[in-house]
Amino acid sequence: MIVALAGGVGGAKLAAGLAQVLAADALTVVVNTGDDFEHLGLHISPDLDTVMYTLAGINDSAQGWGIAGETWSFMDALEQLGGETWFKLGDRDLATHIRRTQALQAGASLSAVTQELCAALNIRHRVVPMSDQPVRTLVHTSEGVLAFQDYFVRRRAQPTVARVEYDGAERASMSDEFRSSLESRDLSAIILCPSNPYLSIAPILALPDVKAALRNRRAPVIAVSPIIAGRALKGPAAKIMREIGTEPSALEVARYYEDLIDALVVDSADVTLGPAIEALGLRCCVTPTIMKTKEERAELAVRVLEFAQAVPVTNAAGCPA
Amino acid sequence: MIVALAGGVGGAKLAAGLAQVLAADALTVVVNTGDDFEHLGLHISPDLDTVMYTLAGINDSAQGWGIAGETWSFMDALEQLGGETWFKLGDRDLATHIRRTQALQAGASLSAVTQELCAALNIRHRVVPMSDQPVRTLVHTSEGVLAFQDYFVRRRAQPTVARVEYDGAERASMSDEFRSSLESRDLSAIILCPSNPYLSIAPILALPDVKAALRNRRAPVIAVSPIIAGRALKGPAAKIMREIGTEPSALEVARYYEDLIDALVVDSADVTLGPAIEALGLRCCVTPTIMKTKEERAELAVRVLEFAQAVPVTNAAGCPA
Repeated sequence: MIVALAGGVGGAKLAAGLAQVLAADALTVVVNTGDDFEHLGLHISPDLDTVMYTLAGINDSAQGWGIAGETWSFMDALEQLGGETWFKLGDRDLATHIRRTQALQAGASLSAVTQELCAALNIRHRVVPMSDQPVRTLVHTSEGVLAFQDYFVRRRAQPTVARVEYDGAERASMSDEFRSSLESRDLSAIILCPSNPYLSIAPILALPDVKAALRNRRAPVIAVSPIIAGRALKGPAAKIMREIGTEPSALEVARYYEDLIDALVVDSADVTLGPAIEALGLRCCVTPTIMKTKEERAELAVRVLEFAQAVPVTNAAGCPA
Repeated sequence: MIVALAGGVGGAKLAAGLAQVLAADALTVVVNTGDDFEHLGLHISPDLDTVMYTLAGINDSAQGWGIAGETWSFMDALEQLGGETWFKLGDRDLATHIRRTQALQAGASLSAVTQELCAALNIRHRVVPMSDQPVRTLVHTSEGVLAFQDYFVRRRAQPTVARVEYDGAERASMSDEFRSSLESRDLSAIILCPSNPYLSIAPILALPDVKAALRNRRAPVIAVSPIIAGRALKGPAAKIMREIGTEPSALEVARYYEDLIDALVVDSADVTLGPAIEALGLRCCVTPTIMKTKEERAELAVRVLEFAQAVPVTNAAGCPA
């Protein structure tokens, strides 16, 4: 049993790679919901959608979000009606939001809705939200405190970030499926996918019972660095690191996760960082991590899984210091 | 000032004809909301939409409902997700429903939302819902009591109708714009458009304060028969008349409206019914009423308006019996 924590595009790619090489009952993908928001009266879960669409093989890989072959009539008509158009909702994508919103309004949990959507999309592996309670990522910036999508989409991640807050995380708990996957006797590794540490992975880790469960884990935690040669393949991870006074590098990713993880996978471009990462007490695996094709996703998944088998749990409660 | 009461397609055509020949401040189109319903979490107002789209000139005249050049990606994706697809929602049409639902959820009245949508669609004339309170048409049928859209769309108006109920009408009042139009000193006629009497016009007339206002009117009420040569051009009006034991004819339309109207406009095909209609104490105007083109819509509007000028109020409180 593998538990993979994922956010948007990069995380979804590795999650899809893991799904390519693992049996349906051997993988639970836990997805960040800190960037969920209400928009036009709809409950939108961007990271869940990205992961679902990617695992279903219907994602628009050129654009990096949404559904391949999408049409935009709704957006066009909404613009004519004077509606808000800064967050692009494709016609096909809307079906997901409307189904989800309708089910939530009828009292279903986000987990239940997600399970239903995944079944309809013929996704065989478990995809679960981190929590069924609302957690909302707030970005403290040079322009004030911004709701996540205001920062990320409306303002195109341009404001300078001071810090990131996970509003509601203290009062939220992990979803039942997340918990039962972590508690599985067969759990062999927890993988932090190459998603933005601050915006995608940290909201999951901010849940108090997740922190506790990881402290008491018997399986290793392996992170895959989203920073390659000092840059993020996509999104503002490197920009945010600079803004909060950290050098954007896989070594700083290791330091960020240091108290939590047992090992870090870094790209071949960062081979020289290996000794410094190991000096932190972490195992380090150096391997190509850029996933441009389905084959590369599966190759990285296999590499991470093989590496995980050799990683002892060294950084949890009860381990020798 | 003309007040026109309208339901779906036929009513919308005459309303559009009236809009072609009347100044923007000389027409209020009051639209049935008895067939409004909640679907997929959205508030849908089919008659308001048909009237708005027709007045805006963006209606799909071949199909008879919806928007011309519509696309159907949402519906296709919804079907793949296992959602309800019996009520067709086009991608462009969805923008209307989402805007309306969002505004209603934020506390706006249906009148206010409708005004905003009309402004965005560049509709110059007033289009107002009959009421800002919910009235729901229920159809008592051989298959039990059906919500209007269940009867009309899902069951394609196939069940045999016993009677029609306007749930909530007793507790509802007409919208402010409807009231102020009826109370206008310049009101010169109230026109019942050629919509289904039972399903489109009766819900409006079922509002207690509409009944009272019409009883005390100083302007004539002129109905345009939706039954031509014993048939309805569109929809189940003739079928319902047969089912409730009435011969489908313009004369029976006259009898149905008899206590309320001062005059009836019937199609040239029904010229032989004129004497019988006049024997009911109503004025009768015989003229072509089929509106296949914009020109025919305007011609009928002009004809009805000219006729209205010659119709005295004979059937209201205070009139000689």
